[in-house]
Amino acid sequence: MRLVVIGGNAAGLSAAARARRLDRWLEIVVLEKGPVVSYAACGLPYYIEGRVRRLEELQVASIEEFRTKRRIDVRTGAEVAAIRHASREVALAGGERIGYDKLVIATGARPARPGIQGRDDPRVFALQTFADAERLRAFLDQRRPRRAAIIGGGYIGLEMTEVLRARGLHVSLYSADDRLLGSANGSLQEALARRLERFGVALHTNRPVRSLSELEVDGREPDLVLLAAGFRPNVELAAEAGVEIGRTGAIRVDERLETNLTGVYAAGDCAEALHKITGRPAYIPLGTTANKMGRVAGANAAGRRERFPGVLGTSIVRVCGLGVGMTGLAGEDARAEGFDTVSARIEALERAEYFWGAKITVELTAERRTGRLLGGLVIGERGVAHRTNVIAAALEGGLGVEELEMLDLAYTPPYARVWDPVLIAAQQLRKLLS
Amino acid sequence: MRLVVIGGNAAGLSAAARARRLDRWLEIVVLEKGPVVSYAACGLPYYIEGRVRRLEELQVASIEEFRTKRRIDVRTGAEVAAIRHASREVALAGGERIGYDKLVIATGARPARPGIQGRDDPRVFALQTFADAERLRAFLDQRRPRRAAIIGGGYIGLEMTEVLRARGLHVSLYSADDRLLGSANGSLQEALARRLERFGVALHTNRPVRSLSELEVDGREPDLVLLAAGFRPNVELAAEAGVEIGRTGAIRVDERLETNLTGVYAAGDCAEALHKITGRPAYIPLGTTANKMGRVAGANAAGRRERFPGVLGTSIVRVCGLGVGMTGLAGEDARAEGFDTVSARIEALERAEYFWGAKITVELTAERRTGRLLGGLVIGERGVAHRTNVIAAALEGGLGVEELEMLDLAYTPPYARVWDPVLIAAQQLRKLLS
Repeated sequence: MRLVVIGGNAAGLSAAARARRLDRWLEIVVLEKGPVVSYAACGLPYYIEGRVRRLEELQVASIEEFRTKRRIDVRTGAEVAAIRHASREVALAGGERIGYDKLVIATGARPARPGIQGRDDPRVFALQTFADAERLRAFLDQRRPRRAAIIGGGYIGLEMTEVLRARGLHVSLYSADDRLLGSANGSLQEALARRLERFGVALHTNRPVRSLSELEVDGREPDLVLLAAGFRPNVELAAEAGVEIGRTGAIRVDERLETNLTGVYAAGDCAEALHKITGRPAYIPLGTTANKMGRVAGANAAGRRERFPGVLGTSIVRVCGLGVGMTGLAGEDARAEGFDTVSARIEALERAEYFWGAKITVELTAERRTGRLLGGLVIGERGVAHRTNVIAAALEGGLGVEELEMLDLAYTPPYARVWDPVLIAAQQLRKLLS
Repeated sequence: MRLVVIGGNAAGLSAAARARRLDRWLEIVVLEKGPVVSYAACGLPYYIEGRVRRLEELQVASIEEFRTKRRIDVRTGAEVAAIRHASREVALAGGERIGYDKLVIATGARPARPGIQGRDDPRVFALQTFADAERLRAFLDQRRPRRAAIIGGGYIGLEMTEVLRARGLHVSLYSADDRLLGSANGSLQEALARRLERFGVALHTNRPVRSLSELEVDGREPDLVLLAAGFRPNVELAAEAGVEIGRTGAIRVDERLETNLTGVYAAGDCAEALHKITGRPAYIPLGTTANKMGRVAGANAAGRRERFPGVLGTSIVRVCGLGVGMTGLAGEDARAEGFDTVSARIEALERAEYFWGAKITVELTAERRTGRLLGGLVIGERGVAHRTNVIAAALEGGLGVEELEMLDLAYTPPYARVWDPVLIAAQQLRKLLS
């Protein structure tokens, strides 16, 4: 029995490692087209910042570890040119064919490349791979650019405003629409705009960029342009092999993460996942989800029957020192999905002032008719992951608003408050619902 | 209609305030025997430390605010001598009688006073009231004691080790048993012992103290003794009036927090609460619970029908910089309640090293036969409230171990990890259960 995994990062390697733990006899081959496997892409902005000194610190595990400790044949520079499911084999770009019994597609995503004139200009950078990061850091260290334009208001674009400001550059951020982080939530947009302004970042929303010549930073043209306009799932290889693509544009999978082709699974940034709040497939590429999907796909490929339960889209990002956490669907994001909603938004200290308590905003949204909790948004300088994750667990457990209001949370002055901001928001929401 | 509340702190004032919000016509009288109402007792150690400069900072709301803004007649120095339920009145120590239609008993708890010879010695202090705190801080400021003995290994005793060490004293801690924080959990005891040793606190367990002459600090007799041997519920007034006392020694209540006497409610540190894991009444006096019980008792006294859902016993304490969080029943604490258990304990970084990630220990316990999650213990220098509260929400929502393992939590390097320590612990626990 041979398992072939296409893709050597979060989802692919999680699948391979889990399959190995469950089946010590399985032959496992991982094919990675790039030169590096198993790296923590989310850490790249902090390598640019300088906080991560060497890229190797972002290497989660080495090829050697996979080969010797786990007996997984990890190959880099191994680009798959075609999947031939009829004969259960993949063809590499160099011509080699590798047969499989089970296949996990974990081809990930690539940066979206909006049709921008001049995007091959040497001032233009992306930030997905180690090579991207090395090139950008070298440029910053050696050329000392002064003015950066960032195209895209997603995670990387926003994280990089902080990094580039910290490195002393003037920064303009261009977003094609008015939905930073892809969210319609009004409180979120307002908080981000305020924070960017406070940190001297010029924010241009509803400004799709067609040519580099449109960009200006501090009244002049930028000497650094970062393309961070989101990601597109790498589905072409799968689609050509007859794997069904969902409406989101990513690979469609069932709850066991199997595609329409028997024995072929998909996981991570190339695949859809069930959104637990809408009950519909969604495309929300995140490292957390990729790792979890990989584990489940690997288990099923190794003969188990495991279910991937779906996602809440829980995420957090730090933007110029401001933490923004989201889980489920809050405010306008729930309304955009067709829910009739009630939202409560409160601001409270997240711990006592004498322990440097910071203000935190919590917004909770429920469905008006049923009172069902739909999601939460948390914004602040401290304690944001904490509250976001409490709300995520409440959503997962299907807590009612009354149950959330009475949730027995921990308190002591150095760490928390006697009425946690999440509980205060739940109190407000219950009043609005009754 | 008149509501009388006995006790002017967390539970009593929460009850009064909630009743007012629900019924603007109700007459509300709060009788507090002490000189101060509405203070945050949990902050007293940090007043002794000096971080809280004035006691007024720990005053949550003033009597004036209650009187004018909420039209609640709050009286201090008003000691109730008897409850006469047959005639629906309370008699004050001075002789005055006040009739009631509804009564909320929120008499709180008092420091346990183990039979110690010499406890009236001027070197002996407690820490429950503003007066206690003023006396202790003045003693520290003026007399500059060098050697402190703390009697009791509960929250206050342990918090005060940190405070007194920070003020430069030598400190010995005496515990009557080997269960600091009242817990049988082995990992907890070990972590606390290690931390106290590292901070130069001499820990004496299984050492019930009968006379001050037994105490030694740094080889000599202490010049400061702090009595912190736990709390006893103030139930005498209620018991004399015919209110039923439960097996825990605290006032027995139903799920609406009504006692056996119709129209008489009890809330806070004088009352029992249903423990959600054991399904039995428990006595776990905490400020969080007192506030929540007060709200429910106040609502029911004002004519609503609300249910207090019970407690998980979620708590957190900081001991010499180490956070210790507990929720539900973990490890030996679950076994002590008769459960046949499986526990997983893991240690992991709670965020990336390049964001000063600290190691955190998470222990999760489940019932062996059913796989039901019973509780968690979290120990570390950062992120402890966060993980404790995620586990609390998971317990509240009845998440299975598999659901917890796949919980969609937030990740970004500055705040969290791609596999949160709670998820890693759940993975381990699932393996042990299967």
